Amino acid sequence: MKARVTVTLKTGILDPQGKAIEGALKSLGVDGVASVRQGKVFDIELAGADKTKAEAALKEAADKLLANTVIENYAIEMKA
Amino acid sequence: MKARVTVTLKTGILDPQGKAIEGALKSLGVDGVASVRQGKVFDIELAGADKTKAEAALKEAADKLLANTVIENYAIEMKA
Repeated sequence: MKARVTVTLKTGILDPQGKAIEGALKSLGVDGVASVRQGKVFDIELAGADKTKAEAALKEAADKLLANTVIENYAIEMKA
Repeated sequence: MKARVTVTLKTGILDPQGKAIEGALKSLGVDGVASVRQGKVFDIELAGADKTKAEAALKEAADKLLANTVIENYAIEMKA
């Protein structure tokens, strides 16, 4: 079973990396970009076919390691 | 207009960061994770309402800056 966990900064948390990308795009001449925020994505393959178990494992992984829940949100998306 | 650009490593490209996460999850006692691959996600806000123009700008941004197309794939997803 495959899943994708997307970790993004919470609204209001400063994102200097995104700001730097914004500036770089401007100096590269890419027009029309108003703002950029960077996040992380984890493509995870899970052993076993139990969806409920898999979702619980992913939630645990995100809470314990993948996301810093003080400043980040995460979204879990199961794939076929 | 909002969009999300997801950048992931191509198949076959070694992902030591993903491997490290895999190991860390195992030692944290999170079971059932077979493999992890890490990527990047960019949440981009675009000026203007022209979808075609926005998509062209995003493609340019991804090719020029966001992804290293030698080893990475990218996917552009427009949001409402």
